[in-house]
Amino acid sequence: MTADMNRQILLTSRPAGPPGLDNFKLVQSPVPQPHEGEVLMRTRYLSLDPYMRGRMSAAKSYAKPVEVGEPMVGATVGEIVASRNAKFAIGDIVLGYGGWQDYALSSGIGLRKLDPAIAPVTTALGVLGMPGMTAYAGLLEIGRPKPGETVAVAAASGAVGSVVGQIAKIKGCRAVGIAGGPDKCCYVVEDLGFDACIDHRAADFARQLEAVCPAGIDVYFENVGGAVQQAVWPRLNDFARVPVCGLIAQYNASSPMPGPDMFSVLRKRLTLRGFIVTDFAAKEGDFLREAGDWLRSGRLKYREDVVEGLENAAVAFLGLLQGTNFGKLLVKVR
Amino acid sequence: MTADMNRQILLTSRPAGPPGLDNFKLVQSPVPQPHEGEVLMRTRYLSLDPYMRGRMSAAKSYAKPVEVGEPMVGATVGEIVASRNAKFAIGDIVLGYGGWQDYALSSGIGLRKLDPAIAPVTTALGVLGMPGMTAYAGLLEIGRPKPGETVAVAAASGAVGSVVGQIAKIKGCRAVGIAGGPDKCCYVVEDLGFDACIDHRAADFARQLEAVCPAGIDVYFENVGGAVQQAVWPRLNDFARVPVCGLIAQYNASSPMPGPDMFSVLRKRLTLRGFIVTDFAAKEGDFLREAGDWLRSGRLKYREDVVEGLENAAVAFLGLLQGTNFGKLLVKVR
Repeated sequence: MTADMNRQILLTSRPAGPPGLDNFKLVQSPVPQPHEGEVLMRTRYLSLDPYMRGRMSAAKSYAKPVEVGEPMVGATVGEIVASRNAKFAIGDIVLGYGGWQDYALSSGIGLRKLDPAIAPVTTALGVLGMPGMTAYAGLLEIGRPKPGETVAVAAASGAVGSVVGQIAKIKGCRAVGIAGGPDKCCYVVEDLGFDACIDHRAADFARQLEAVCPAGIDVYFENVGGAVQQAVWPRLNDFARVPVCGLIAQYNASSPMPGPDMFSVLRKRLTLRGFIVTDFAAKEGDFLREAGDWLRSGRLKYREDVVEGLENAAVAFLGLLQGTNFGKLLVKVR
Repeated sequence: MTADMNRQILLTSRPAGPPGLDNFKLVQSPVPQPHEGEVLMRTRYLSLDPYMRGRMSAAKSYAKPVEVGEPMVGATVGEIVASRNAKFAIGDIVLGYGGWQDYALSSGIGLRKLDPAIAPVTTALGVLGMPGMTAYAGLLEIGRPKPGETVAVAAASGAVGSVVGQIAKIKGCRAVGIAGGPDKCCYVVEDLGFDACIDHRAADFARQLEAVCPAGIDVYFENVGGAVQQAVWPRLNDFARVPVCGLIAQYNASSPMPGPDMFSVLRKRLTLRGFIVTDFAAKEGDFLREAGDWLRSGRLKYREDVVEGLENAAVAFLGLLQGTNFGKLLVKVR
C-alpha cells in the first residue's frame, strides 16, 4: 500500500516555562497496519491549537497529559488509506485525532467523514470544527449576549476569537476585538466586520479599550488572561458574563498569576465560568447547522494560516503561543 | 404623641481600613412629624449586617454610600406611632428601612406589615428576612445543589450561613460549616444539623477541611473570602459553583486582594457569580412560603444575638465584623 515511513513528532521533555524546540523530536518508524476493525489514516492537515500547551504539562487538568516519548496529540483531517472497518472506505476523508504524525490508526470511534462538496475540508479543523464550536458554545451558552450589548474578545483574528465576534455581530451586538498588531486589527474590522479592534501592544491600550467601549463591556470572552484581562476588568458592566475559555498569556507562567479582584465579582455581580468545548457536546448539531448556514451565506468568514510540512509543526506551534500566526493555524502534512 | 427626642447614630467619617467608634456619633434631635402620606415608625429592632461596612465607604458599589453626617442605614422592625397614610394604622408593626435611630419617617413604600401571630417579628430581619432570602436565592439559584453533593459555607452560625447549610440539608446535600471557635462549631452541628463544622482559627484548618470533605466541594457559598477562600479553593470539584455573596474577611483591606487562580476556573470549569439579594426579588414569594413552612415544621432553626440599646449599636457592629456575635445580630432599640 505504501512504502513510506511514518514521521512522528514526540514530546521528549516537559517545559518549565516557555516550551522550546528541545521539547520535541522528529522520529521515523514503519507505517503501522490496521488490525481487524481499524483504519489507517494518512494525515493531510494537522490542527495546531493553544490547548496543546496544557497537554505538554503533567499538571492535573481536564485531559490527561501527553506522555514523554509519545507523539503530540492533535486533530487532523486525513484520508483513509487502509481499512478493516466496514464503515470506512479507502479514499474517505475524515476528521479525527491523528496527532503530530503522517499516519495514524483508529478504531473508527470518533471519526467523522467529511464531504468536500459541502465545505473545504480544512474548515472541520477551524470555523466548522472545535475552535468554531468553542466560540459558539462559550458565547451563546455562557455569554448569552443580548442585542445592543458589547462583546469583547482577544486574539480576535484567531480561530476562536474571529468566530466569537462574528456571531456577536449576527446576534446584534457591538463586537470589539483585541489583537496583536495593525494588520490583524485591520483584518478584524475590514474583513470580519467587528465594530472596532485595538492592538494590545499599544502603549495606551487601556485608554483605547475604554474609548471603543463607550457603554462598557457586557460579555468578555476570555481566552488570553494576563495584561489584557487586567485592562478589560474595570470596563466590565454590572451583570457582565465572562466565559473562561483559555489563558494563553499565562500558559508559560511558572507560578500561578493572581486572579481578578473578587470585590468586582461581588459588586458588579459578574459571572465567570470556565468551560471546554466538550461540556457542550449536546449543542454540536445546532452549531454545525447554524455555522454552516452562516458560512455559506457569507456571514461567517475565516482565514487560515497554513504551514507546509510536518517537520515545521513545532516551530509553528511555538509561534502560535507568541501570536505570530494570522488566522487558524494548520500544518499541511501531505 | 411623644415628648421623646430622636436619637440617631451618624456616620461622621469614612474609615481607612478597619472602622472604629470614632467613625460614628450619637446625636439627638426632635422627633420628626409625618407629612400627608407619611408614617412615623418607632424602631423596636435594628438589624446589623455586614453589608453596612460597604455603605461606610465612598467606593462605587451597587448601593450608594451613606453620606458623612447622615444616619447609618439599616433594616428595622418598628411600630407605627403616627400615620397620615391610609394604609397604615397606629400600632401596626412594620418591616422597614428606618436606619440607626429611634424614629423614622416613611412614605409607606417598601414597608411590610408583620403579623406577630405568624412568626416572631424579629425573624423578618433574619431567617425570614434579607439574610434568609440571601441564603435561599444564592444557594438555590446560583449554587443549584444536587442531592448527595457537598455544600460548604463559612460564618456558618451567622444569619446567612446558618440558612445556607440547613437548606442544603433539606435538599439532600452534605453540609459543611466553617465558623470561628468551638462553641459556634458545636452549635452548627448539634443544633442546626450540619454534617460537620470546623474552626477556621485552627492551625490545621486546611487539613481539617479536606478531612470533612472527602468527596470534595460542589458548592462553596462565599461570604468571607480571604484565608478561608484560599483553603477551600483546592477542594472544589469540577463544575463547582461559587455564589459570591460577601467577602467580610476582606472588607477592611486597604488594597485589593488577589482573586483565586483563573487556571482553576478554567480547568475545573468553575462558575463564580456575584449577587445581591435584590437581584432575585422575583423569588421572594417562593422564599417566604418555603422558609415559613420549614420554620414552622422545625426544619429551619435560627439564633439571635440581641444587643440592648441603640447606644450600643456601633460597638455591636464592630464586633460583627470581627465575628464576636453568635447568631443574627439585632439591636433592641425599644
